[in-house]
Amino acid sequence: MPHVVIVGGGFGGLWAARALRGAPVRITLLDRGNHHLFQPLLYQVATAGLSAPNIAAPLRQILRRQKNATVLLGEVAKIEPDARRLRLADGRSLDYDQLLLASGATHAYFGRDDWAPHAPGLKTLDDALEIRRRILTAFERAEAEDDPAARAAWLTFAIVGGGPTGVELAGTLAEIARHTLHGEFRRADPRRARVLLLEAGPRVLSSFPEALSDKARRQLETLGVEVRTGVPVKAIDDRGVQLGEERIDARTVLWAAGVAASPLARDLGVPLDRAGRVIVQPDLTVPGHPEIFVAGDLASLQCEGKPVPGVAPAAKQMGRYIGGAIRARLRGITPPPFRYRDFGNLATIGRMAAVVDLHGLKFSGLLAWWFWLAAHVLFLIGFRNRLVVLIDWAQAYWSYQRSARIILGGDRDA
Amino acid sequence: MPHVVIVGGGFGGLWAARALRGAPVRITLLDRGNHHLFQPLLYQVATAGLSAPNIAAPLRQILRRQKNATVLLGEVAKIEPDARRLRLADGRSLDYDQLLLASGATHAYFGRDDWAPHAPGLKTLDDALEIRRRILTAFERAEAEDDPAARAAWLTFAIVGGGPTGVELAGTLAEIARHTLHGEFRRADPRRARVLLLEAGPRVLSSFPEALSDKARRQLETLGVEVRTGVPVKAIDDRGVQLGEERIDARTVLWAAGVAASPLARDLGVPLDRAGRVIVQPDLTVPGHPEIFVAGDLASLQCEGKPVPGVAPAAKQMGRYIGGAIRARLRGITPPPFRYRDFGNLATIGRMAAVVDLHGLKFSGLLAWWFWLAAHVLFLIGFRNRLVVLIDWAQAYWSYQRSARIILGGDRDA
Repeated sequence: MPHVVIVGGGFGGLWAARALRGAPVRITLLDRGNHHLFQPLLYQVATAGLSAPNIAAPLRQILRRQKNATVLLGEVAKIEPDARRLRLADGRSLDYDQLLLASGATHAYFGRDDWAPHAPGLKTLDDALEIRRRILTAFERAEAEDDPAARAAWLTFAIVGGGPTGVELAGTLAEIARHTLHGEFRRADPRRARVLLLEAGPRVLSSFPEALSDKARRQLETLGVEVRTGVPVKAIDDRGVQLGEERIDARTVLWAAGVAASPLARDLGVPLDRAGRVIVQPDLTVPGHPEIFVAGDLASLQCEGKPVPGVAPAAKQMGRYIGGAIRARLRGITPPPFRYRDFGNLATIGRMAAVVDLHGLKFSGLLAWWFWLAAHVLFLIGFRNRLVVLIDWAQAYWSYQRSARIILGGDRDA
Repeated sequence: MPHVVIVGGGFGGLWAARALRGAPVRITLLDRGNHHLFQPLLYQVATAGLSAPNIAAPLRQILRRQKNATVLLGEVAKIEPDARRLRLADGRSLDYDQLLLASGATHAYFGRDDWAPHAPGLKTLDDALEIRRRILTAFERAEAEDDPAARAAWLTFAIVGGGPTGVELAGTLAEIARHTLHGEFRRADPRRARVLLLEAGPRVLSSFPEALSDKARRQLETLGVEVRTGVPVKAIDDRGVQLGEERIDARTVLWAAGVAASPLARDLGVPLDRAGRVIVQPDLTVPGHPEIFVAGDLASLQCEGKPVPGVAPAAKQMGRYIGGAIRARLRGITPPPFRYRDFGNLATIGRMAAVVDLHGLKFSGLLAWWFWLAAHVLFLIGFRNRLVVLIDWAQAYWSYQRSARIILGGDRDA
């Protein structure tokens, strides 16, 4: 039976594997982690609202009944497209008949990798726990600090990048400072915390219509976030950010500004776009390699004149399409080109604040927030996760408390 | 107002702080972590049954309404009893009028600290996540392994120490191998995993009556654990264990054999017992220092001719007693000596297996397991935690699944 190797157990890879259920192929799903991650809620783990296992499920458990699929924990070191072979980091190799590359994106610092230790990004559960540790530790350090300026720097949080992740982080951080921690500190008042959202472009949530960007900005400001647009970050160090001519002393800087495609794309020897993504054919294959598919954040594709966005629904649609395409080929049929169905765009901002754009139907505020919440709980994998996340959210809603305010990973920078 | 400094936010320290609610003192509760940990369920985090925040609550949140208490994140470097001063690791110092040392115990390797990297122990949430990572990774490595002997070594788990923690880990590991992971691997059959419980003494759970030790051993064997008693471990390395004359190839070795008191006890300049614990006066003070109390695992005390055991109820009783003693002194009253009320002893073994000894009333098996479960859920701090833990357990009971099967901390040993 032909061997289909899928690299990456995210939305693209996992949905392709599921679409191949019962097909006469041997599937190997390769991932560096042992779990599928529900990335849209990752910021909740970073801001102590959810615990890591709430938004993750073991890939093996998801695929346990799919007998033609096997899960392998491992990392690809190199793709050899001509030999149809993957070299793994541990020295093993894996031959394939058809390959799906769905290894996603990582955060990118636009050539300033020296900023990385001072401004962690948010892509994996380990990233989220590191950000959680920094946020919670910053309030503790402020409490222990005698010097007012030093205390203020510990209570200043700068988030670089006004896309959905930056907006979510900023809104939630403001809620934590104003409500969650209220009354728990005796010296440093968390309500004095400054949360800054720094966006180099002219507006936040630039993938939304301008009216919703404005709504989002006003909702952020109501929550207590200082939004700065139109000024690029010039430098980041362990004490803060240089924003244009202004120096901001902030001991916690978070990076939500840029993503770059997984570097594996370069092994294919085909044209990449500016973000390093593979410019795929209309059937999501790589030019010159009909046996290699690309899905999710790693694929660059125009559909009806518009670029397909790097969001979960697009990755799922691509995965499902590729599963179907492989099935079709087995029966000698050429699959029709991939078509992206754009159901709309939503982003949450914070407590009772969100924006929703369903093409024609646009709304924001409390109603948008409930819509966002329902959509996200609905798509979480696993009944238990849905129930536990709902309990955590209900509790957070009523009490302003957050269920995962636990610093893990020791006192690494103490 | 007199300044009461409490070192350690475990059962001893936290219960003392709560007992001082409203008292005319200034309390500083110092801990290295930001959370109180419900240690009796720590093995569930290590074995992927619960997530870390389920069994922990932020100390600040617990004490937020107690206005005479302040929480400080920090580590004691040195106690200076004559100056009534603590030196912290970050250079700060803290003067006290009365001190409660409740910094607990850590695992000890009996002078073989070189075993530590090969056989992690279980005291903190970070320990638990490290053990979880090793256990889950071992099954993954077995699946990737071609050589049968190497695969068998990845599927062999040796737990050193037959006390409550060792028994819990062994019983749960056997359940994971036999049930949870069943059907999820294509090459390595988890049911072939060997789980060994190694106890140098003549029986497991030696703090229980001999009949219950026998019951526990039989329940462990029914679950699939190989119990070896009466043979000491001679050596541990990264490939396994030397048990008397026998070599056991095991890529996962866990340490549940010994605890030693927190090294802070040595600064007091008073006699310690063999485990490094402070031999306290009947009122839990340090000889020659009536202003220093010791509680929990750090205190060594005989009560009615028997040593007070290092269990959570004893630590809570000590904490409550010390809070009361400090209040009594403020009113010029000399507190009566501490008396330990021993309600009994319980230990869980695994699915539907436990032993309970309520002095006279002894039982084991399913009934004991329900009793253990009810007692532990009841004493968990926080309504949410109780509810979520119950959901996780109900789901685990019916499906054999475990809710936190997520490898965190990257592929550190890959």
